[in-house]
Amino acid sequence: MTPKAYRAIQDCQVIVGYKAYLQLLKGLLEGKEIISSGMTQEIRRAEKAIEKALGGNDVCLISSGDPGIYGMAGVILELLGKEEAGKIPIEIVPGVTAASSCASLLGAPLMNDFAVISLSDLLTDRRMIEKRIRSACRGDFVIVFYNPKSRKRIKPLQKAWQILMKYRSPQTPVGIVRNARRADEEVIIISLKEMLAVKQIDMGATVIVGNSKTCTKGRYMITPRGYELTQTH
Amino acid sequence: MTPKAYRAIQDCQVIVGYKAYLQLLKGLLEGKEIISSGMTQEIRRAEKAIEKALGGNDVCLISSGDPGIYGMAGVILELLGKEEAGKIPIEIVPGVTAASSCASLLGAPLMNDFAVISLSDLLTDRRMIEKRIRSACRGDFVIVFYNPKSRKRIKPLQKAWQILMKYRSPQTPVGIVRNARRADEEVIIISLKEMLAVKQIDMGATVIVGNSKTCTKGRYMITPRGYELTQTH
Repeated sequence: MTPKAYRAIQDCQVIVGYKAYLQLLKGLLEGKEIISSGMTQEIRRAEKAIEKALGGNDVCLISSGDPGIYGMAGVILELLGKEEAGKIPIEIVPGVTAASSCASLLGAPLMNDFAVISLSDLLTDRRMIEKRIRSACRGDFVIVFYNPKSRKRIKPLQKAWQILMKYRSPQTPVGIVRNARRADEEVIIISLKEMLAVKQIDMGATVIVGNSKTCTKGRYMITPRGYELTQTH
Repeated sequence: MTPKAYRAIQDCQVIVGYKAYLQLLKGLLEGKEIISSGMTQEIRRAEKAIEKALGGNDVCLISSGDPGIYGMAGVILELLGKEEAGKIPIEIVPGVTAASSCASLLGAPLMNDFAVISLSDLLTDRRMIEKRIRSACRGDFVIVFYNPKSRKRIKPLQKAWQILMKYRSPQTPVGIVRNARRADEEVIIISLKEMLAVKQIDMGATVIVGNSKTCTKGRYMITPRGYELTQTH
């Protein structure tokens, strides 16, 4: 969390957020009005935040990672009416997104161009997701998958894997990070061929699939930037 | 900057970095050995950092934004020999990358899948860059361009624009942010058609090109996440 985000939470009177994220804020919640709700209640939460702000409160609407990447920034701006926009000053506080936090634990997989794709088919048509995976493969992008799998949603990951296997070597390094930078963090580097067998891929995981140049070195996954390094190294 | 990055810099004895970035750290440099060098000296800086660490120092090698995205994380891991790796514990501290900080100033352009492409042709073949832009267009990705232009390098941006104009409406919103979150920050939202005329596009700028669904609303650029919002909003 950046100091800017910390201060915003410290200074507000009302905090609105998904239950699981609020638990991570423990010490910061005291003395504030807390409005929490379950997953898939994004619109309800944003409406609540607007309502509370119109009532004269400083309100924090919480996302994990970066609110601007598949987070709450979009819902709140989409919902905000013209009249409301004039009354409520909104600030989006950027954060460290999962692509960055997970890459830092894997080594340096994002040193060259990459694509970020969410495998959640709740809000995006499955054919569109598959089209994007194919396009990213054709462009030899490193691919970062957000929301790779949930208890009920297994197919998009299987389908993604089938597409990846058509375009990339089965030996392509794949990095999987679960609960990055939390107490129960798990970091796995495996080949594309074996990826689907990894039990740790769930909603708390991020999956980074290398491009044609990505390699492993010791415990690291590295996509070369393209520097010409001398042979002494 | 995250508190983790701040503490790492506070606790080290040697700081290695690109001159312009070290100037941003002013107050933190006192009493430390400072090794700075110019742009394109990435390998030299990483070698220096390894040398100093082998000499028993705690060393910080500085990147702006996130060191894992086109930053110094890759160079240092690529350079590190096997023997050295055993002697030097390395930690990559993730940060807020330009895609996140710039998106937060534009509104919510990254609410759906996006591709990150560097237009610097120093280390990547120009044909590969163009191929990636075409692939990202075909997949209807929002596209984030890093290093869009320098004083001497103008052609890749012109070429990128020509490709974008083939695939996307000339009215597609484009967000340009220069020196995000610094004193001389500039934020511009303009149509794809008019993009090339923007003088502020340089090495300190990041350019975000919307997908087919991206729209503007007041002073914001928004890519809808796909929620079905009721008509009352």
